[in-house]
Amino acid sequence: MSADKRPGLADATRGRILFGGDYNPEQWPEETWHEDVRLMRDAGVNSVTLGVFSWAKLEPRPGEREFGWLDRLMDLMYENSIGVVLATPTSSPPPWLGRLHPETLPRDEDGRSEWWGGRQHFSHSSAAYRRYAAAITEDLAARYGGHPALTMWHINNEYCTYDWGDEAAARFRRWLQTKYGTLDALNSAWGTAFWSQGYGDWEEVLPPRHAHYLKNPAQVLDFKRFTSDMLLECYVAERDIVRRHTPSPIPVTTNFMPLWVGQDAWRWAEEEDVVSVDLYPDPRDPLGAQHGALVQDMTRSQARGPWMLMEQAAGPVNWRGVNHPKPRGLNRLWSLQAVARGADAVCYFQWRQSRQGAEKFHSGMVSHAGEEGRTYQEVKQLGAELAGISGEVTGSHTSNDIAILHDWHSWWAGSHEGRLSTQVDYAEVLTTWHRALWQAHLATDFAHPEHDLTAYKLVVVPQLYALTDAAIDNLLVYVRSGGTLVCGFLTGIADEDDRVRPGGMDPRLRELFGIRTLHEWWPLDAEETAETDGFCGTLWSEEIEAAGDASVEVAYKGGELDGLPAVLRNGRAWYVSTLPEPHALRVLLAGIAADAGARPVLDGLPDRLEAVRRGDLLFVLNHGRESVTVQVPGTHRDLLTGATVRAEVTLGRYGVVVLRP
Amino acid sequence: MSADKRPGLADATRGRILFGGDYNPEQWPEETWHEDVRLMRDAGVNSVTLGVFSWAKLEPRPGEREFGWLDRLMDLMYENSIGVVLATPTSSPPPWLGRLHPETLPRDEDGRSEWWGGRQHFSHSSAAYRRYAAAITEDLAARYGGHPALTMWHINNEYCTYDWGDEAAARFRRWLQTKYGTLDALNSAWGTAFWSQGYGDWEEVLPPRHAHYLKNPAQVLDFKRFTSDMLLECYVAERDIVRRHTPSPIPVTTNFMPLWVGQDAWRWAEEEDVVSVDLYPDPRDPLGAQHGALVQDMTRSQARGPWMLMEQAAGPVNWRGVNHPKPRGLNRLWSLQAVARGADAVCYFQWRQSRQGAEKFHSGMVSHAGEEGRTYQEVKQLGAELAGISGEVTGSHTSNDIAILHDWHSWWAGSHEGRLSTQVDYAEVLTTWHRALWQAHLATDFAHPEHDLTAYKLVVVPQLYALTDAAIDNLLVYVRSGGTLVCGFLTGIADEDDRVRPGGMDPRLRELFGIRTLHEWWPLDAEETAETDGFCGTLWSEEIEAAGDASVEVAYKGGELDGLPAVLRNGRAWYVSTLPEPHALRVLLAGIAADAGARPVLDGLPDRLEAVRRGDLLFVLNHGRESVTVQVPGTHRDLLTGATVRAEVTLGRYGVVVLRP
Amino acid sequence: MSADKRPGLADATRGRILFGGDYNPEQWPEETWHEDVRLMRDAGVNSVTLGVFSWAKLEPRPGEREFGWLDRLMDLMYENSIGVVLATPTSSPPPWLGRLHPETLPRDEDGRSEWWGGRQHFSHSSAAYRRYAAAITEDLAARYGGHPALTMWHINNEYCTYDWGDEAAARFRRWLQTKYGTLDALNSAWGTAFWSQGYGDWEEVLPPRHAHYLKNPAQVLDFKRFTSDMLLECYVAERDIVRRHTPSPIPVTTNFMPLWVGQDAWRWAEEEDVVSVDLYPDPRDPLGAQHGALVQDMTRSQARGPWMLMEQAAGPVNWRGVNHPKPRGLNRLWSLQAVARGADAVCYFQWRQSRQGAEKFHSGMVSHAGEEGRTYQEVKQLGAELAGISGEVTGSHTSNDIAILHDWHSWWAGSHEGRLSTQVDYAEVLTTWHRALWQAHLATDFAHPEHDLTAYKLVVVPQLYALTDAAIDNLLVYVRSGGTLVCGFLTGIADEDDRVRPGGMDPRLRELFGIRTLHEWWPLDAEETAETDGFCGTLWSEEIEAAGDASVEVAYKGGELDGLPAVLRNGRAWYVSTLPEPHALRVLLAGIAADAGARPVLDGLPDRLEAVRRGDLLFVLNHGRESVTVQVPGTHRDLLTGATVRAEVTLGRYGVVVLRP
Repeated sequence: MSADKRPGLADATRGRILFGGDYNPEQWPEETWHEDVRLMRDAGVNSVTLGVFSWAKLEPRPGEREFGWLDRLMDLMYENSIGVVLATPTSSPPPWLGRLHPETLPRDEDGRSEWWGGRQHFSHSSAAYRRYAAAITEDLAARYGGHPALTMWHINNEYCTYDWGDEAAARFRRWLQTKYGTLDALNSAWGTAFWSQGYGDWEEVLPPRHAHYLKNPAQVLDFKRFTSDMLLECYVAERDIVRRHTPSPIPVTTNFMPLWVGQDAWRWAEEEDVVSVDLYPDPRDPLGAQHGALVQDMTRSQARGPWMLMEQAAGPVNWRGVNHPKPRGLNRLWSLQAVARGADAVCYFQWRQSRQGAEKFHSGMVSHAGEEGRTYQEVKQLGAELAGISGEVTGSHTSNDIAILHDWHSWWAGSHEGRLSTQVDYAEVLTTWHRALWQAHLATDFAHPEHDLTAYKLVVVPQLYALTDAAIDNLLVYVRSGGTLVCGFLTGIADEDDRVRPGGMDPRLRELFGIRTLHEWWPLDAEETAETDGFCGTLWSEEIEAAGDASVEVAYKGGELDGLPAVLRNGRAWYVSTLPEPHALRVLLAGIAADAGARPVLDGLPDRLEAVRRGDLLFVLNHGRESVTVQVPGTHRDLLTGATVRAEVTLGRYGVVVLRP
Repeated sequence: MSADKRPGLADATRGRILFGGDYNPEQWPEETWHEDVRLMRDAGVNSVTLGVFSWAKLEPRPGEREFGWLDRLMDLMYENSIGVVLATPTSSPPPWLGRLHPETLPRDEDGRSEWWGGRQHFSHSSAAYRRYAAAITEDLAARYGGHPALTMWHINNEYCTYDWGDEAAARFRRWLQTKYGTLDALNSAWGTAFWSQGYGDWEEVLPPRHAHYLKNPAQVLDFKRFTSDMLLECYVAERDIVRRHTPSPIPVTTNFMPLWVGQDAWRWAEEEDVVSVDLYPDPRDPLGAQHGALVQDMTRSQARGPWMLMEQAAGPVNWRGVNHPKPRGLNRLWSLQAVARGADAVCYFQWRQSRQGAEKFHSGMVSHAGEEGRTYQEVKQLGAELAGISGEVTGSHTSNDIAILHDWHSWWAGSHEGRLSTQVDYAEVLTTWHRALWQAHLATDFAHPEHDLTAYKLVVVPQLYALTDAAIDNLLVYVRSGGTLVCGFLTGIADEDDRVRPGGMDPRLRELFGIRTLHEWWPLDAEETAETDGFCGTLWSEEIEAAGDASVEVAYKGGELDGLPAVLRNGRAWYVSTLPEPHALRVLLAGIAADAGARPVLDGLPDRLEAVRRGDLLFVLNHGRESVTVQVPGTHRDLLTGATVRAEVTLGRYGVVVLRP
Repeated sequence: MSADKRPGLADATRGRILFGGDYNPEQWPEETWHEDVRLMRDAGVNSVTLGVFSWAKLEPRPGEREFGWLDRLMDLMYENSIGVVLATPTSSPPPWLGRLHPETLPRDEDGRSEWWGGRQHFSHSSAAYRRYAAAITEDLAARYGGHPALTMWHINNEYCTYDWGDEAAARFRRWLQTKYGTLDALNSAWGTAFWSQGYGDWEEVLPPRHAHYLKNPAQVLDFKRFTSDMLLECYVAERDIVRRHTPSPIPVTTNFMPLWVGQDAWRWAEEEDVVSVDLYPDPRDPLGAQHGALVQDMTRSQARGPWMLMEQAAGPVNWRGVNHPKPRGLNRLWSLQAVARGADAVCYFQWRQSRQGAEKFHSGMVSHAGEEGRTYQEVKQLGAELAGISGEVTGSHTSNDIAILHDWHSWWAGSHEGRLSTQVDYAEVLTTWHRALWQAHLATDFAHPEHDLTAYKLVVVPQLYALTDAAIDNLLVYVRSGGTLVCGFLTGIADEDDRVRPGGMDPRLRELFGIRTLHEWWPLDAEETAETDGFCGTLWSEEIEAAGDASVEVAYKGGELDGLPAVLRNGRAWYVSTLPEPHALRVLLAGIAADAGARPVLDGLPDRLEAVRRGDLLFVLNHGRESVTVQVPGTHRDLLTGATVRAEVTLGRYGVVVLRP
């Protein structure tokens, strides 16, 4: 099957928003399964994910197989018109594997084993693990690849393990040999001439284990790349097995953790038929909705179309210090926010809350309180509403005028322990810039710095410490082609080997922004601010000398940097050498966006309201607890209530309308 | 000797309050021993504990014995009428044991060894350790079991070690085999169907070592039980040896650390002839006296009669961040508080402050300042006073009207890393409830949830997350029999396998308290409070629906829980779904106690004053630095001064009276 | 060559202040070397340090040698009249060494290896490491010992490693055998009678590895001594090799880290021809200049004459949480401060800022901004100024009237985990006392407690927890000879084995200060203060009883210590039982100094101004950013500007004058 004929999410949804969640029936007696199906049907559940943690049940002893219970479940689901997202069980190997092959257990940088008794205690590099994982995947796929209940394959679960052990070291060396070919090339890329680290034999190369002092940053960077690639190898191996056994167009996915640092999701997404993500904003976080919006924007951008919300929580999770439940209405609000931003699947971990095990205080769609509990009652209401709008929603996709650039490799390179400020956290900076645009009601996509950007009116770079030459060229082309570019500090500092660019920032970028000399970076202390003639800067400031033709839009005021540029403009290229306080960043970006022709989704929207377009539809969401009346030009029909909306609409606490013109 | 003929504390006190402490004469030349005896006699010391850390001295090389120095000491004590509490030296093995048998060293969950060079570097599971410990115990007991100086056996010292190593793993498996019989039973109790943890062979089972993510909570719980049981096995083995060699009625004890999490002291106490405890409140802690009261109440309840204060400090300890000395009078005050609450022994670590070693800044009865130092002078005064009241005090015991329920297994189960709030700390909640009663001058016992409670007027459950069916029945019977029960949140959530009860809280308890549905738990953030129409709640709140016949005594006000019950009452059963701020909890409990017929020890006592009854005696203690006059109905004689007290008495700074009617 | 004929710093300076820094040309193509030399010459650089991290380059595979590149560099430097401080490369072994000899990797107390990939991953105790280090040193010395560019040998770099591993254990035992001769002596010194730690065989003795509870303090103390001694053995071995191969008078040094806890620098300095130090005050620290002054005073005192500033930063470092650059002028100011306090060499890490590796964000004399950057421009200006004053400065030395006593062994002994207050930090106390004198413009030396002190008018002991009998005698002799002594709390508590002195403080010292009884120490909590009738005390207070003839100069007021001495005087011996708040300490010490005849460098100097005499010269430095006018009696010439200064001089921001009468 050629790549362009790959199945996609539409093959699983078939016009319905998928609604359901992880189902771990191994925990329950079979009589509960029938009770479950009754409640699922009442709640409009049309999809369950089976098998995520079933390895020990499917293979209780090495090489044995017990499929009967899963046969019965698959059939039960089919009889009840509930589709099955079937998982390979390889994220949690059975105890026997660790006992038989201790080398399958990952080692941390201190040499500690990660033992069984939790989950994800597998080394991506272990040949034994890969062999056993392939075998159970093969048999599972052979047995169920043609089952009529099957709607999607789900490989492993939340890939997220590292390994510094000996077998990983051997594989790291092979990965490096493939990348560099020669030790000379590796020594050059890693800058091993410093600190006497020159390698004379491949066998000397190790993962960056515990060291006396700072580790080699390029070694650490390559180790992160290696880790992402090894996990991807594990995924691809299982994906290829299930594809081989699946006759009909059944898509394959694996679920990302939101903005997880360890996985280059741009690259992973290319290997998936469906991009799916798990999303757990803190219900108590006043900016939880923005966190959701960011992850949804990023996932949609990776999917380049509809995507799947694989896991969310109907109530509390159990891994925060204090785990808050969702107040009445919040589960519905955040679910519809995901649909507005492109989700064609709204799913949960997990269907029925566990009574035992490490996650028994993680909520389920059916909580400990059961059918009478508020949680299930709200799930049921939501199921009905999603079914009502499914036909108007699924399959549609909207691109936006603004792109935020994001790259894992740059994140990794910029996180080295020997950097100038540990106060600077890539994910926080990225989040702060997205937040400014979100609060200005400006819809955003995410893009990789080497993506074609020419369709965007505005490109925003919160921070890309390391950029390839290709990425730099891409930015130059974009601005030359008439695009507007806004770029935050610590961008273009290093190349892909984490080698500092001449002058401390790439000369082409300095020319683009009108920076003659970058004398010194002036990072700010935790509570420190830098005054300017416009706003307060935080986190960072810079001693830069502007080129003659650049315009100092905002200048530092007082102190050592008095008069130097905080915001520098050179035509359509803007450089921001500090992190403006949130309101100032929002005003700055809104102004630049307006000049670039990028407009808010709706004009005049109050704070805590969000408007999102998906295809022809306009979703308006009230993230506040007070009623708000919103102006909506023209006449629409609210798909949720059927009401006609003329010029304005009032949204109650956590209220949502889905407006069709 | 049958159990009911076992010796007790009275066999050691013989009518005198034991006064003295740990004596480690190995540190001093023999001429100092004679100086020590002179000072002991001057101070009224009648008991010393020998041998706690003498293993290397008694057995300098494997299998050798050097008893001569101890012979001389035993004789010296006998000649001076000082009784000896003789310790088995097994808490600190000599260096040769670790070198000869590295497997005797415990391993932590990360695999790190605990090396010699400190103390307590022994694995409870090591066969070699147990063998050597038994041998030295045997020889010690054979030699001194009949010595006339001997008054008590002291086994080991502050048992408190864990071990995650391989020999412990083997013993853990045997312990589990005994408990569960079959792997099926273990798999069911541990809920291994979740996360693919099913065990197919006993050899696969391990202690809960370092894992990638959350550990299996039932495995962790059983490992805590196992640890307590293994330590108890070590204790029992040595106890049985010394009993075998001891002709006269000499009781056996081991000293608890106060409210130490790792030891099920209810079960341990049953195996002791004398219950003893070490107690080190921070002299700077304004609530140090309440901490003392709690530990004393608990120890007396475990002993079901007089108990032994095995260790306290005459001055500072040396293991806090900042170690404060005791101001003038505080040592006397807290010693008499212990006597008031049932202690028949007031002892210290240690007699003479060390000049070398890890504890040389831990105070002694004779401090570095020596005989002239304030510390020794106060010890001497106390010794005289204790001798003066001994005859009226020893042997007497008082039970109280109120029981606070406490259970280690519930504590363990409720402490899992995957719980809803890490802000909730069992020991803090327990302490907060005890404090409310203590500040209301209500005297309390502690009881196990399966103890017969029918004699109590009021039973208080601060928090018992996990309860057996027997315990639940016990509570139901208690209320049905006319008892008043007050119960805090997070009680009755799980069974003894940490399996969540149906509905998230046991249905029988929900019926008892009038809870129809427990929709969601709403834990509070660190500084957050929940408003009610009566007080502010802290730590926790709940979304519960009351049954029709229950009465909402206090309701949440505002927020998501508006109108829902903070305090719910169903007849004599009260449920408190938050932790009221301290004053409110005191008022609430005082009111319920009054209704139940439980009265304060003395009416109208001001804050910082404490009144305690022991037998016929009334102790009144001033924990403040200002003089206070207290009303005491009737006429008494103060045993300390001989003065007659009519209707009122004035207590100076840290003052105490011991009143006999 | 006999010790008194050893070469010294003057053999390297030859009348010029050495100016330059670490040069790591391995990182750059050879064309850059020529560009470097041009910039060095423009900046007046006359000294570079080569080879610090060149082991892998010099010995790319075991036993191979590649000297050609270094030959070319040595010649290039010589041709350009730039002297070379040539380093043995032994601080960062090549990866092949760790692979070939894993036992060369240090182990921490938890057993973790320190792997290669950073630097300093060598065990001082490894025979293999020592063998390979000697071999490369031998060949390097043989080849370059007679090279005309060579001006100094630099052994290793910032010795600072510990090792708890097995080979270190074996060496520790040998070190202990040499020190103690018999196990009995060791057992006595370590107080092993406590906690059953008696050793019966040398093989039982270990480094103080991870333990269950507090470690033996004397064992920890000896392990610190052993570590310092092993590192010194490594140094001496390489020093002796290079001496053997060096015909002309070329001095040998190794660079200290400032006030680093692990090295007894008094003893080390005796083994060096030149004492050198690395110094990195935080540019943002308002007391950075005082930190510099302290390190400079200490280094000069160790050198007993001119010394070498081996490393400082021209801009930011990269190992703090937030790394600030140096504002304009600060590099010059702090460099001249070092010269004022005796430095005859002003050098940097490193010449050219790295583009790769772990320190690429550590500044260089040539920053990423290059020749145009402010950093290099300021370096160039400084180079010219130093050349201008060199002739008047080099070789001169000034002793002061006040000595502050400092001793590493006392620091080590007093840092045990089982001490009374973890709030008390030796280095902070030392710094606070030095600061008080510095702010009072009183010039200070540092001295060891056994040094001859009789030339000093005032001796100050901030805190010397452990003192030998010889040191105590030395203090007594000093006071008896007419000296004035001021002594802070926690002094004279223990002997050199960390055995507490009788009475808790040495009786001879108590008599000296007029302390009759030291009843109890009263450490203070973090934010707590102790009121006196003169000032607020911090950190500590004491319950002491004064002898009849002593005078209570300042008494505690209120609380438990009311009326007891905070400052006690007995003739010329003063005892301070708390840490007065900074201003009070300054006033107290200034008064005592005045009485003792020790005068400020200049009278009436405002805050933030510093005056330092070196030989005939008077340096005045403005550490503030505002201009200040200073009175300077008489007429001087400012060597930096050539201007004549009569009676007063105005210093601008960070201004400096170097005045010759």
